[in-house]
Amino acid sequence: MKNRIITISREFGSGGRTIGKMTAETLGIPCYDQELIEKLSEDSGFTEDYIREQDESSAHKGWFANAFSGRSLNGVSNQDYLWIIQRSIILELAARESCVIVGRCADYILKDAADCLKVFIHAGFDKRAQRIVSLYGETDVPTQKRLADKDKRRAAYYQFYTDTQWGLARNYHVTLDSGVLGIEQCSSLISGLY
Amino acid sequence: MKNRIITISREFGSGGRTIGKMTAETLGIPCYDQELIEKLSEDSGFTEDYIREQDESSAHKGWFANAFSGRSLNGVSNQDYLWIIQRSIILELAARESCVIVGRCADYILKDAADCLKVFIHAGFDKRAQRIVSLYGETDVPTQKRLADKDKRRAAYYQFYTDTQWGLARNYHVTLDSGVLGIEQCSSLISGLY
Repeated sequence: MKNRIITISREFGSGGRTIGKMTAETLGIPCYDQELIEKLSEDSGFTEDYIREQDESSAHKGWFANAFSGRSLNGVSNQDYLWIIQRSIILELAARESCVIVGRCADYILKDAADCLKVFIHAGFDKRAQRIVSLYGETDVPTQKRLADKDKRRAAYYQFYTDTQWGLARNYHVTLDSGVLGIEQCSSLISGLY
Repeated sequence: MKNRIITISREFGSGGRTIGKMTAETLGIPCYDQELIEKLSEDSGFTEDYIREQDESSAHKGWFANAFSGRSLNGVSNQDYLWIIQRSIILELAARESCVIVGRCADYILKDAADCLKVFIHAGFDKRAQRIVSLYGETDVPTQKRLADKDKRRAAYYQFYTDTQWGLARNYHVTLDSGVLGIEQCSSLISGLY
């Protein structure tokens, strides 16, 4: 029998990562997110900092620019190289154990390979703004721009590698507005479906 | 305090209407769908059959064509006239009592007027095809085309009157894949959030 995986895609500031960790804790299974970056780092030979910098969620450098630059002689960009490694790690994790995987297009990567519950977490602008300011503090960049930039990058990354639109209900088994339902209710609802 | 309303948008064949009725029964509140058509009919002076024929879900005539034809002298099409009546009935229902409303862009109409839980139900093609054939039987039109036509009409209707894309996760508090989760689990999940 295939392992049971929960994949969580999320808008920036929606609490998707927290919901993933909370759900994994309730279910007694691991949650992969930062851990995945470390594993990526080991396997790729890139440093962890470098990968973090290249990642789609980076506020400083765009993955999109990187996808079309920094190409090696065989035409594979660093970003494409990371995608390939990331994909094989996710497939390996899913074959090894039941777990929660946050982000990284895991829903798409595992679509034929695993028994997945595919979740998308989002929230209204005000709730997300409040959350990122309380978690990460204010920066020189206006909150609205920080949110818009990250969402734009995640959407573009998802679209580029999966060829389908980010945030469409039909790509997920469950989508939840964490701003209205609350982080804990979202987590308990997902655990209940496992 | 505002009444608590559940609005359910749904892909054709996803069982959204059944889920709405089941949820309303569990919660002991009314569910408006056919009933709404009747009420529409009474208030508008159109016959019930005529309204059913004009409705976005009609397989025989497109609302879209009607939206741009049959205009009266003041430029309001029959379809627009129905929209206006429908909108006022939904607002009236929401002000009167807690209830479930299936379809009719109720989520959009009530966005500022009521305490709403906004739900979208969808399912994969095979599950929906199976459901419509078992409920309505085979017709001369291939199942794939029946599904595609209805979805297209609903999406266009929603887009036209709400100016936002149909089926985007962020337009709803909860979206559920009834093909994977099952009709009963969807209903009990929604009831649990009420």
